[in-house]
Amino acid sequence: MRDKTAAMIVIGNEILSGKVADSNAVFLARELRGLGVSLERILVIPDDLEAIADAVREYQPKYDVVFTSGGVGPTHDDVTVSGIARGLGRPVVSHPEIESTIRRLVGDSINAAHLKMAEVPEGANVIFQQDQKFPIVQVDNIFVLPGIPEIFREKLQALRPLLAVDPYFLRIVFLNAYESSIAGFLDETLAAFPQLQLGSYPKLGDPEYRVRITLESKDEEYVNQALEHLVSKLPQGMIVRTE
Amino acid sequence: MRDKTAAMIVIGNEILSGKVADSNAVFLARELRGLGVSLERILVIPDDLEAIADAVREYQPKYDVVFTSGGVGPTHDDVTVSGIARGLGRPVVSHPEIESTIRRLVGDSINAAHLKMAEVPEGANVIFQQDQKFPIVQVDNIFVLPGIPEIFREKLQALRPLLAVDPYFLRIVFLNAYESSIAGFLDETLAAFPQLQLGSYPKLGDPEYRVRITLESKDEEYVNQALEHLVSKLPQGMIVRTE
Repeated sequence: MRDKTAAMIVIGNEILSGKVADSNAVFLARELRGLGVSLERILVIPDDLEAIADAVREYQPKYDVVFTSGGVGPTHDDVTVSGIARGLGRPVVSHPEIESTIRRLVGDSINAAHLKMAEVPEGANVIFQQDQKFPIVQVDNIFVLPGIPEIFREKLQALRPLLAVDPYFLRIVFLNAYESSIAGFLDETLAAFPQLQLGSYPKLGDPEYRVRITLESKDEEYVNQALEHLVSKLPQGMIVRTE
Repeated sequence: MRDKTAAMIVIGNEILSGKVADSNAVFLARELRGLGVSLERILVIPDDLEAIADAVREYQPKYDVVFTSGGVGPTHDDVTVSGIARGLGRPVVSHPEIESTIRRLVGDSINAAHLKMAEVPEGANVIFQQDQKFPIVQVDNIFVLPGIPEIFREKLQALRPLLAVDPYFLRIVFLNAYESSIAGFLDETLAAFPQLQLGSYPKLGDPEYRVRITLESKDEEYVNQALEHLVSKLPQGMIVRTE
């Protein structure tokens, strides 16, 4: 079975200029990994209509699911909805259910900025959840999520049942060795277990270990056998511990 | 004067799978902002030859400077050098100065993994710095930096004099107001100061303020005038403080 694939488009000048550290990408990456969805790209772009449209044109047909983060508020720099619409070649329209929700919440003091929050690319679905005022907007295979981390997480967690496939199994070996002295053992393990996802991550200044080896597969048995194989090949005393 | 532009390519399955949170992108973003270089894209891709080559083909001609982060160690999953070479249509060669440095450091126990660290795309320059064993590799306008945060930072700081242009000036207004109630004032300020970079960032759960407005320009006088203008338009009592 082919993996379900995903891409993330993070929209925000504040991230590219270093004023805000994005935390949504790593949250999404972990969630998708747990759900068995393979995140293939994370792209950070400015609050720019054409940049958003270009990213949508590239990623929407290429990946099973696309997430956007940011640029959905009521201010001048919130151009995500327009950018997605342009990328899909559709107009921006006011969504009747969102608009009526906003009118109910805001009442008589409603203004253009409030109403901007009801705008969606034509053909969008909205997913209302219990105990959340504002729905999730979905256009084709694109989920349009807000940049504010607390809300991004809430909405993403509400989407879990829609996204789940089957999870990866992860085993880890912590080694007291330099990467250059173990590269051969890793190559050999990969030759014996070609479907294995094998990672090697050196850590500086940690008193416990020098490099962390990760082994992953959607087949639990396979990853356990690969771990056993690698451990049996590594020189005595090099292994700090396994997880 | 046109801005000096930059793009960053982060290479690592570990980031896409959520096993490691990247910290190099935000560090680079802040450094470049301080140096007056405009970071236009951050792209995270897997440890995959063709993905790296594609990213290089797209970004190398488009931006003044391109940084890569990660994938330069001695193990099987370190394919950044090969990917960049493929993207530029050049072979991978062993760099004589790096190779001799490695041979001097490692001595008789040298192996293929050590020697892999001397590989560069043909035509690469190496920049040796005082008190660092390993040089910075530069190929055309691409700086090939390691993923380990401590080393990434060291090398980037060594590059500062090469990169500096002229800095942005940043002013901030903290407001006790919802974005929807201030959008009109922001639009009006932007109409009066069209060159201004204006950002609006809501914050949840902060007792001090609800939204942070950033004003930026490379012209200090211009940004100060824009701030004065915006402050004069905002309703009394909404402003918590300015920076």
